[in-house]
Order: sequence, then C-alpha cells, then structure tokens
Amino acid sequence: MLAVHIESGHVDVREVPRPTRPPGSALIRLLAAGICNTDLELQRGYYGFRGTPGHEFTGVVAEADQTALIGRRVVGEINLACGACQWCAAGLGRHCPERSVLGIAGHPGAFSEYFTLPERNLHLVPDEISTERATFTEPVAAACEILDQVAIPRSAEVAVLGDGKLGLLCAQVLMAHGASVDLYGRHAAKLAIARASGARTFANGSLPAGRYAWVVEATGAPVGLGTAIRMARPRATVIMKSTVHGNVPLDTAPAIVNEITLVGSRCGRFEPALELLAGERLHVEEMISDRFPLADAARAFERAAASGVLKVLLEAA
Amino acid sequence: MLAVHIESGHVDVREVPRPTRPPGSALIRLLAAGICNTDLELQRGYYGFRGTPGHEFTGVVAEADQTALIGRRVVGEINLACGACQWCAAGLGRHCPERSVLGIAGHPGAFSEYFTLPERNLHLVPDEISTERATFTEPVAAACEILDQVAIPRSAEVAVLGDGKLGLLCAQVLMAHGASVDLYGRHAAKLAIARASGARTFANGSLPAGRYAWVVEATGAPVGLGTAIRMARPRATVIMKSTVHGNVPLDTAPAIVNEITLVGSRCGRFEPALELLAGERLHVEEMISDRFPLADAARAFERAAASGVLKVLLEAA
Repeated sequence: MLAVHIESGHVDVREVPRPTRPPGSALIRLLAAGICNTDLELQRGYYGFRGTPGHEFTGVVAEADQTALIGRRVVGEINLACGACQWCAAGLGRHCPERSVLGIAGHPGAFSEYFTLPERNLHLVPDEISTERATFTEPVAAACEILDQVAIPRSAEVAVLGDGKLGLLCAQVLMAHGASVDLYGRHAAKLAIARASGARTFANGSLPAGRYAWVVEATGAPVGLGTAIRMARPRATVIMKSTVHGNVPLDTAPAIVNEITLVGSRCGRFEPALELLAGERLHVEEMISDRFPLADAARAFERAAASGVLKVLLEAA
Repeated sequence: MLAVHIESGHVDVREVPRPTRPPGSALIRLLAAGICNTDLELQRGYYGFRGTPGHEFTGVVAEADQTALIGRRVVGEINLACGACQWCAAGLGRHCPERSVLGIAGHPGAFSEYFTLPERNLHLVPDEISTERATFTEPVAAACEILDQVAIPRSAEVAVLGDGKLGLLCAQVLMAHGASVDLYGRHAAKLAIARASGARTFANGSLPAGRYAWVVEATGAPVGLGTAIRMARPRATVIMKSTVHGNVPLDTAPAIVNEITLVGSRCGRFEPALELLAGERLHVEEMISDRFPLADAARAFERAAASGVLKVLLEAA
C-alpha cells in the first residue's frame, strides 16, 4: 500500500506493507485526509518526527473486533490513551501521560492507504456529513474545546485573532454558539470567508486596546499572544489556541495588572464537532483550497505551505 | 512635614507643606508603613516615577468629612477610582481606567507624615490588630485576591514558587483557607518562616514536573512563569502574582498542550485581609526584618533591597 513518509524536511510516498491491527484496534482504509499546520511543522522537523503523518481523516473500517463497524465511515480521536490512568478515568485521555498520538507521536498517521486506531477512538460519520466535510471533525473539535473549557455567554462579543484555518473554525464555532465574532486577519480572501459566515472582519492594522472580554489567539505567530493581551479588557479571558515553537518574548505585566486569564486550549471531544458538522452552520467547504491524490502528497504539502492557502486535502485513489 | 522623595534612583526625605484634603477625602497621619518591592521598582525608575511612594500603611485620620473617622486607626485601598464607570459600578474600582494609585501613579504616597485618601477607600483597623500588623493589610489583600479569582478547593495541594514577601503571604493565606502548601524558595531563613506557619518547603534545586493542579508564581523572576508551567499538571491553574518588567522569554507550547490556565492576579479587597489579620493564622510579624524612622527612609530603602531581607517598616516619630 502507499504511505506518505516524512524525514528531514522531505516528503515522499512509499510502498509499504499494510499494517496489522492489534486486538481492540480497527484497520481503516483512508477516504480523505486534511493537511494541518502541525503536519507542516512535523515536516520542518519539530518533535524530531520521522514517519507517516496525518491525523485529520475520514476512512472506512476494513477490519475490527466490533463487526458492526466494518464497512462504516468513521473519523477518529487522535490520542491513543492507556485507558487506565486517572486522566483516562476522568474522560481526559487527551491528557493521558502514556498517550501516543496518531501521525504526531508514536503512532503511524492517516496519510496512508490503511492505518490502525483503537476502536474506542472511532466515531461513525452520520450520512448527512460528506466525506470531505468529515475530515474537518478533528479541527472543529479543537475549536469546540474552547466552549468546553470556558463559559462564554451566548451573546458575548469575541475577538478571534488570525484568519488561518484554526481562526476561521474558532470563529464559526463561536458564532454557532451564539457569540458575535470580530475576526482580525490579514488575507482578504480569508476574511471574506469569515464575513460570509457572519463575522465582522478587520484588517490587522487597527487593533483596539482593552476592548474585549473574550479573545481567541489563533494567529500562529509569536507576537499573537501579546497582541491578544493588549486587546483584552480587565478581567478578560484570552484563549491560547496557536502553538508556537520555542520561546516567545512576552510582557506579562499587562496580564497581571489587568488580571487577565489565559487558557491553553488544544484537542477537543468529537461529539459536539460532529453535531455541528451535521448541521448547516459551519461553512468548511469554502476552506478547501485544493485536493491531491495521496500519491501526490509531496506537491500537496508544498501547496499547503503556500501563503494564502487554507485546507489541502489528500484523497485516496 | 517630612515626606520621602524618590527621583532618578535617589531616595531622600524632604520638608514639604502638609497636603490639604479635597472634599470626600481624609487627611491621614502616618503611624507605620511597609516598603514593598514595587517601591524599590519605583526607585529604580519604573513607571517614570518621581515623588512620594508608599501604599502599605496604617494611619490615624486627622481630618475627614465623616467625623466618626477622626482619630481612628485606618488602612486604605490604594486605587483611587472615578466611582462612575462600569468597573466602579461592578465593585471593581481596582480596574477603573481613570484610577490613580496611592504612591504609585498620580497620587502622593504614604511615606509621608500626612497624606490624603478618599474616605471610601478607608477601613477601620479593629483593636485586636496591632499597628505594625495592619501595615500588611494591602499585601495580604493581594494574596487573598487569589481566592476571589479562582475556586481552590479547601483540601487542595498548592505549590507556591518564591519565598519573598508575596510568596510567604500567599502561602499563609492559602493555608488559612485550608490548602496544603508546598513552598519552593532559596533562602533558608525565609523557608523556615514558611515551615513555622505550616508549609512544606523545598529548595529550588528539585522542581517536580507536571505535579500540581494549583501553582502560585510569586518568584519575581523572569524565569518563574516557565517554571510554574512546567510544575503544573494538565488542566492545572497557574496564578501569576509577580510582575516582571519587560519581555519574559516564555515557551507557551506546554501551557497549550497541557491546557493550563494562567490567571493574572493583582490587588484584592481589604475585607478578607482584615478578617484574616484579626485572627491568629497569619504570622506576619516574623516577616518584619527591620524598622526605621521615616526620616531614615534612604537607609530603609537600602536595607529593603538587600538580599534575604523581607519587610522593612517606616515608622512615624
């Protein structure tokens, strides 16, 4: 079978043996997968990654212990937790210290004709969600995580910083929740997508200070957090969504003087994401910039890294 | 009258006219005042300060509109709020954007034989609290602010980083709340004070990673926040107590991956502080390293800046 392989900044597609599934795990045949910024970071060498990436996918179960799964379309939570520790017992396998992570750490990813994942990680994709749309489940879940962590009132005015994939999804999820979203970004085409889904949009030039009670930082840039803190009013909450590598120079004094709460936010539950995707509030298809066959992964990665590009999908033959 | 004057790093004591009180403000005669790290920072030139510092005081009301105040011992909240904005209406004059701050910004401080403060800022000192003990009301209120901001369970295990004045007060307030406190510091004498009040203490060498659900960062050092984040377990809360000037190099990735909440925390209400000081749980007298007459403020500032020194008091003649 074909599998994408990343090593030392290089992306290629190799013929490798089909994996065998351990008991309790399903063998999944890929239908479509999304390239995430994390995949581009893995390519650049973060986390010392070498192997097959991919964690945003829709697939079909080829083999499983639970025969009811076989032949069904599925998406899958990406953290492979031990199932036995206090975090797993609390339903927070996403924080299990023993976890491996699909296509990121210790478990081969979904950019592959076949791959495995524990059956307990899988969620059936409802018929009303297309295969392409379902590839957004994981990043939509990450956006939904905000609402699991902090109690944002349904009528709140929220600033979202960043018009990349994550910023656009956070904005849409917050609007579906009822919030009024001001999205700050710098790409006209991306801001247009946000406007079409109901956000007010602003070019980065004009950043109001001390205005918002809720700010989502999704710029992916080292200066983003400082900007978010400056735009927050006293006692505001800033949700930190974008992982930046290495040290960020941050003036913490305004966060302390204004008693701002900063909330780190990562992966989320799939249930609310699938519920939202089954409805009509999320306009994720507009975010698909391009599609490539799995065999063309090298070109797909190149395209995904280009400026102005949003989601690039890899599709099985 | 005598008043301390700070300018360009220099501390002196000057003979100046006694201030006149505006309507609604009391004229206060100083009894005793504490030198805070903020005062040392003002001396070093932060905030472009020039004038009379001092915001931790016990005084006697000499003149006031409310005659019941005259002759009474008082402490006073340091933020002079407008009383009319949304923050003031919400009881958060501490965040009033129009505020001036006693001895810090726009209002002459308490290191002066006489000074003024709005009567609504004043709290009577109960007879059971000594004048020296009452000078700790403001910093104890800042420690109590933690419990106003986050719901720390009474049986929680809390790490406090920093054995300075603020760290020791936070530790004591949290223990009075019922928490079990592990205090991390580097001065044997300061750690001994924390132990005497019931904390477990640890030298900075051995910092456990990913252990605590609650961490209070009170080191005053630029590296403190990163250390606090490393010691926090997933979904933990880190309270940011120590203001550091300028940019701090911070790796935000662990805060995001572990979904840690960082809470900026500054001044607090005086009511819970006075209640605690009226009881016997707080051992603040052990934190007094030295006392100087107001006229010797220059020496007092020098002493307060020396390594290993905790609280230095200025006392009226």
